[in-house]
Amino acid sequence: MLPLWQPLDLTRVSLTGGFWYNLQQQVGQVTLGHIYTEMLHQGHLDGLRLDQRMHRGRQEANNWYWGGSIFWDSDVAKWLEAASAYLQHHRDAKLETLVDGTIELLAGAQQADGYLNSHILTWRPRHRFKNLRDLHELYCAGHLIEAAVAHRKATGKETLLNIAIRLTDYLVSVFGAGSDQIPGYCGHPEIELALIRLYRLTREQRYLDLSRFFIEERGTKPHYFDWEAVERLDATTFRPNHPVSPYAYMQAHAPIREQREVVGHAVRAMYFYSAVADLACELRDEELVEVCKNLWQDLCKSKVYVTGGIGSAAENEGFTKGYDLPNFESYAETCAAIGLLQWAHRMLQIDLDSRYADTMERTLYNGVLGGLGLDRKSFFYHNPLASDGSQHRVVWPWWCPCCPANLARLILSFSGYLYSAGPRAIAIHHYVSSEASFPIDDQDAFLVTSSGFPFDGAASLRFESVPGTSFEVLLRVPEWSGDYQFAVNGEDVAPEIVSGYAVISRAWKSGDEVTARFQMQVQTHFSNYEVIGNRGRVAISRGPLVYCAEEIDNASGLDRMMIDPEKGADLERVDGALSEIVSLSVPGSIEEQEENSLYPISAPARKTCTIKMIPYYAWDNRAPGEMLVWLRHGR
Amino acid sequence: MLPLWQPLDLTRVSLTGGFWYNLQQQVGQVTLGHIYTEMLHQGHLDGLRLDQRMHRGRQEANNWYWGGSIFWDSDVAKWLEAASAYLQHHRDAKLETLVDGTIELLAGAQQADGYLNSHILTWRPRHRFKNLRDLHELYCAGHLIEAAVAHRKATGKETLLNIAIRLTDYLVSVFGAGSDQIPGYCGHPEIELALIRLYRLTREQRYLDLSRFFIEERGTKPHYFDWEAVERLDATTFRPNHPVSPYAYMQAHAPIREQREVVGHAVRAMYFYSAVADLACELRDEELVEVCKNLWQDLCKSKVYVTGGIGSAAENEGFTKGYDLPNFESYAETCAAIGLLQWAHRMLQIDLDSRYADTMERTLYNGVLGGLGLDRKSFFYHNPLASDGSQHRVVWPWWCPCCPANLARLILSFSGYLYSAGPRAIAIHHYVSSEASFPIDDQDAFLVTSSGFPFDGAASLRFESVPGTSFEVLLRVPEWSGDYQFAVNGEDVAPEIVSGYAVISRAWKSGDEVTARFQMQVQTHFSNYEVIGNRGRVAISRGPLVYCAEEIDNASGLDRMMIDPEKGADLERVDGALSEIVSLSVPGSIEEQEENSLYPISAPARKTCTIKMIPYYAWDNRAPGEMLVWLRHGR
Repeated sequence: MLPLWQPLDLTRVSLTGGFWYNLQQQVGQVTLGHIYTEMLHQGHLDGLRLDQRMHRGRQEANNWYWGGSIFWDSDVAKWLEAASAYLQHHRDAKLETLVDGTIELLAGAQQADGYLNSHILTWRPRHRFKNLRDLHELYCAGHLIEAAVAHRKATGKETLLNIAIRLTDYLVSVFGAGSDQIPGYCGHPEIELALIRLYRLTREQRYLDLSRFFIEERGTKPHYFDWEAVERLDATTFRPNHPVSPYAYMQAHAPIREQREVVGHAVRAMYFYSAVADLACELRDEELVEVCKNLWQDLCKSKVYVTGGIGSAAENEGFTKGYDLPNFESYAETCAAIGLLQWAHRMLQIDLDSRYADTMERTLYNGVLGGLGLDRKSFFYHNPLASDGSQHRVVWPWWCPCCPANLARLILSFSGYLYSAGPRAIAIHHYVSSEASFPIDDQDAFLVTSSGFPFDGAASLRFESVPGTSFEVLLRVPEWSGDYQFAVNGEDVAPEIVSGYAVISRAWKSGDEVTARFQMQVQTHFSNYEVIGNRGRVAISRGPLVYCAEEIDNASGLDRMMIDPEKGADLERVDGALSEIVSLSVPGSIEEQEENSLYPISAPARKTCTIKMIPYYAWDNRAPGEMLVWLRHGR
Repeated sequence: MLPLWQPLDLTRVSLTGGFWYNLQQQVGQVTLGHIYTEMLHQGHLDGLRLDQRMHRGRQEANNWYWGGSIFWDSDVAKWLEAASAYLQHHRDAKLETLVDGTIELLAGAQQADGYLNSHILTWRPRHRFKNLRDLHELYCAGHLIEAAVAHRKATGKETLLNIAIRLTDYLVSVFGAGSDQIPGYCGHPEIELALIRLYRLTREQRYLDLSRFFIEERGTKPHYFDWEAVERLDATTFRPNHPVSPYAYMQAHAPIREQREVVGHAVRAMYFYSAVADLACELRDEELVEVCKNLWQDLCKSKVYVTGGIGSAAENEGFTKGYDLPNFESYAETCAAIGLLQWAHRMLQIDLDSRYADTMERTLYNGVLGGLGLDRKSFFYHNPLASDGSQHRVVWPWWCPCCPANLARLILSFSGYLYSAGPRAIAIHHYVSSEASFPIDDQDAFLVTSSGFPFDGAASLRFESVPGTSFEVLLRVPEWSGDYQFAVNGEDVAPEIVSGYAVISRAWKSGDEVTARFQMQVQTHFSNYEVIGNRGRVAISRGPLVYCAEEIDNASGLDRMMIDPEKGADLERVDGALSEIVSLSVPGSIEEQEENSLYPISAPARKTCTIKMIPYYAWDNRAPGEMLVWLRHGR
């Protein structure tokens, strides 16, 4: 029987200050507005008016306009979800007006039968559900449902929820195993996890059932995508070169219960596995839990960057063979990192083990946050681990604008990823200054956390008001932690560590305070031999932050440097162009400019140097230039 | 005014023993027969009967059969040239019969007007000279002409020469600037250098003129290839993605006098530049000499492997941007290395500078000889500098069988690359045990060379019979040489070194002997910083031989090793599976198998080891396995 953990969602957790509070403020005040403006400018919002004529001019100016618009409804929905998350804890009348106006556009676009997809309705109404493989209809529907759940919770309004329910009820009637139903599923998973989220809000069994149908039907033979391709007279071969199957790209090469290997498009994989974990949880299905654990193991063994980025290949925006993790060419899409974080969070609820939270943390502070510029309105679509200076964030990745709103909703929703409640237990996954309420024996307890993460490893947790029963407090010991100490009301305690969590069980009283101190030492990471590009190289981290060297702090030709972290590193807390960070100065050496010949027979002279490093997430925020995570190791 | 140097050709030089004599024997006795058998089996020879029906079965069994056959006449011609070179110094009645029979097939295929191309005549007679860009007609004609010159010189027979002259005279009538002529040129250069070779034999000015036309017309605007594409109603875009021009692939992006950069398909480039150097020489054209020198400099600056291989990219079988020299993916086609050697040899005649001979030597002993298995009947089409064990020589690269016969003719003709004669001067480029006659004041002098190259740096040169005048002897000082000494009749001399050649001028007497001793130390090569894959790595050479590590002598995971050549190296002369070689044992260290995690936080343990290395040319001759030229450097 699975243990039962429930995340404390946004309604229960609000941030109070520090790194995350500031970040949410900036995203709420800058990013949300930037995305809305871009959606206006690009045509996302006009698109909801279902008027072809007004698109024509834009289409002519931009080849991608038409093709890219298959994703647009999802961008609108993610923005609505992000805005809702912000409105959960902030009053912002102007933002609320924009949200309401956008919902009105959606309501106006929704058809009498509940169907809603602006791309299909505007550009090819006869294609409705005729190409589930490519056209992202159910994917867009999924994001709409997620937004509706978030909006309902944050505002109490039913406006968006009603649209989502009408749409979902329509989908329930259209899809399924019935003889008059479509036995298909979407090329891009998302609807599956959205349906479970709606089920959790409404407790309507048919939503869970449809999610289960989509999940279990995926990859069965004869293949639905083949059938629908024949039906629409499409004779082209789909992704003929994939070594596993053409449909591995969308995790539809085999039924989920037969899958053992992480393959294909990284975002699709993460969204699908997230749904599978949710379904496993709802069904208490141990087999599906095992499937998830196997896939998790396969991913972590050989398919994740040290930054938590995943999906190394541009060709399929996804996975290749194990250990194929090049640095200059790393794809590591921002949305894939977000997806990994979502999946890890779900795994944590069905298997409370700190390795999931460790992956969340590393991915969040590096692979995810690196996607967002410090101006809060520029974005990396993919996140290289080395750059020759030619890669920069863009204000809008118009060819597929998935990451801006996805970043905004993740960051603004992150408060909901910090804690889980169990029966007479509270687990703290991420130490973030916040106030949280959690249920103990049907009563609410209140917890106030303050923390210096990610730059300082100290945290305190004060129970403001607790019922008069004993319960367990589980505190994650981060994988990067050197020595660590716990105290209750100032007295050291030595709790048992279970699956990476320190377990303190007692009859808590109001005002009790737990303090935790995790040593944040500078850590040197080597790389498995099989990662060809990392041979002879090391990466540096401190706490959850992976560090990188930038040209602006060092010199061009970063790979002339060799780093010698065994000699120690100096830390400096600086507050400047990169906002408040801890920078590192690590001893090393650097080759002098060598003679100009191709194969000189004398070694280039070396002199000692100090290598300045900053957190990876903060790169490309000052001047264009080279960047390097994996530095040559030596003296 | 250009200095005048003339290579001593095959008629003047014969080998007498040692490494090169043995190699020529093996190629003459094994490779020539192997190629002939394969040409019979594949259809090359039947192809000359111009009978479609007999091809059909083969075509069905092999997709490439039809497409590949556009090159076939050139393979036959290269084999004829190789066989002729062998017959120059060896009686072999059986081989002579095969040669004569093949010439009869060619004679039978030649049309009344002189035209000869089995692919066009058999498969698409209406396409004659309609697609010069792709169909290799003039390329094949060029190889036929080269073979004819070699055959005439070796055997005194006119049979093949007559065919070539009839064909060439036909080409002279068809191509040129006249209003009834085709103002085009071949997509694959070769005819240009062949015409000059025929001119040098026959002194027919029209052959030189046609070569000059082809060379100077190439790349002029409006572009001939565009014109002929329109003429044949071909609307496809040719190589649209090339950064310089679609026709850079074939060095036809600009007239030669405007070219400064080595671009495109590597074999085409080398054959074209060879012809340009020949034309510069014949016309005493200083501008063309400068063009050649600039291109040479561009190549050597950043576009040649340490093995002398060139053309790093598979996509265009050729050049990309400077310093793009990956090791696992190195294309480095065998025929491109042969072409480089041919170009270098021509540069040497118009600019006697040892850097050309150094490049010839390095390319020959590494990039070229590596293409041929020690069984003398297996071939590398492309020559990686690192292998994971998946790359092996093949008995016949049927998709484009250019290298087998090209290797055979180069090796069997190499005697003609050793010496050059100038006015009252003889230059020794390569120290190979041989007998040579050279002209001094219209008399023949005789020289007997004996040498231990490539494993031993000593050589002696005895003048058997010389006219009673003084003349200069120029001896190349190899770039790899440490200390070196020269003596005449046992007495040390300290000659002036001019452009890398030691110049000894005196009134030579019959029986005079020059001895040279070049120190062959083990040399460590570093790499220019810009070559990304070589950072932190070194390559090892001794004399002209670049060395590599193979799995069979070390262990799998060659990149776990770090080499420390500063600690010295032991040499061992061994005669075994790899024939007689000098192997090296170099100190180093090796990582122990590390824990299985992806990013361990402790360095893998290292222990000292000895790294065994063999000459690069000898790799892949024992067992499949990894191979590495650029080893990690350290202790």
